[in-house]
Amino acid sequence: MAEPIDFYFEFASPYGYLASTRIDALAERHGRTVRWHPIMLGAAFKETGARPLTQVPLKGPYLVHDVPRFARYLGVPLTLPPVIPMNSLAASRACVWLEEQYPVQAKTLAKALLYAHWGEGRDLGAPEAVADVAAGLGIDRAALLAAVADPRIKDLLKERTQAAIERGVFGSPFIFVDGEPFWGADRLPQIEAWLSKGGW
Amino acid sequence: MAEPIDFYFEFASPYGYLASTRIDALAERHGRTVRWHPIMLGAAFKETGARPLTQVPLKGPYLVHDVPRFARYLGVPLTLPPVIPMNSLAASRACVWLEEQYPVQAKTLAKALLYAHWGEGRDLGAPEAVADVAAGLGIDRAALLAAVADPRIKDLLKERTQAAIERGVFGSPFIFVDGEPFWGADRLPQIEAWLSKGGW
Repeated sequence: MAEPIDFYFEFASPYGYLASTRIDALAERHGRTVRWHPIMLGAAFKETGARPLTQVPLKGPYLVHDVPRFARYLGVPLTLPPVIPMNSLAASRACVWLEEQYPVQAKTLAKALLYAHWGEGRDLGAPEAVADVAAGLGIDRAALLAAVADPRIKDLLKERTQAAIERGVFGSPFIFVDGEPFWGADRLPQIEAWLSKGGW
Repeated sequence: MAEPIDFYFEFASPYGYLASTRIDALAERHGRTVRWHPIMLGAAFKETGARPLTQVPLKGPYLVHDVPRFARYLGVPLTLPPVIPMNSLAASRACVWLEEQYPVQAKTLAKALLYAHWGEGRDLGAPEAVADVAAGLGIDRAALLAAVADPRIKDLLKERTQAAIERGVFGSPFIFVDGEPFWGADRLPQIEAWLSKGGW
């Protein structure tokens, strides 16, 4: 079995959402699976000095124009949420918690949260908003809310984020294929080419 | 005749070089021409707070790995130059000067300078190094060296750069198609799609 693809993303990143709608099918076309890794991009930004694009002159207006255009290009639903970037701690912790016991369901939850935030424009900063989405998938609200406040889960997300940064991750999406790092949703065609050719 | 494509680039940007090797042929496939605009990206970085990628933790090592890989993907010669980013004032001013009288030759010079710097890895920070490349194209060395030191040409490049920033340019390459801004060499497939479909 070929090596799984590692897909790092930040819930508050629109480009992470856009790539998330394609990465599994892309991998499947080439007999690969994908491991999803939600991370807190702010920790990487401390290393690189980056700020959320929406807060940067010139880049902010570009993003607001480019993200809906990119979504139309892919044929993906997109509603800009009220706050960009939202606080993604609860969403990320919920996925880290669920993955411990139910990895497949954790990916389903991640997709539902990304869709609620970027497809429907809902803010998921509050743990209750994350629990609402999870409840729709049959995930226990109370258990999720407890997990999101659990110091062990908080630390686990921190460790995962730190491990990603140590691997070189500084943006969202950030994708490793056969150890090769690719940054950005606009690199999906190169990733497809890499998988088709077995590298170049 | 359809609107020309505007191609903004910084000589010291490897992604500008990579896109430069494709943009004219891409445009020609769709009956378009391309206007080339060398700019001093540092002026835009003052607006956005960006730094040259090579000086940024995590992003620097990514660039050094990604640029040669991207060049192999395109089948384009690539030799990382000794200094990244080089001082691109002389190269940019030479092109701005030449374009006043010989627009076609200015593009030829820009291509030769990009190839010397990124294809062969030559540093073109010194005006003499720029003049060496230009002389190979039959351009008068003395006239070029005088132009590069001419306050009028200096101001012209500043004005062009400022006009680019006012149009929203903050990176290299930065490409406008029918008024639509596209940032990055990895957006060439989207530009191709835009031209094929007449937008989306």
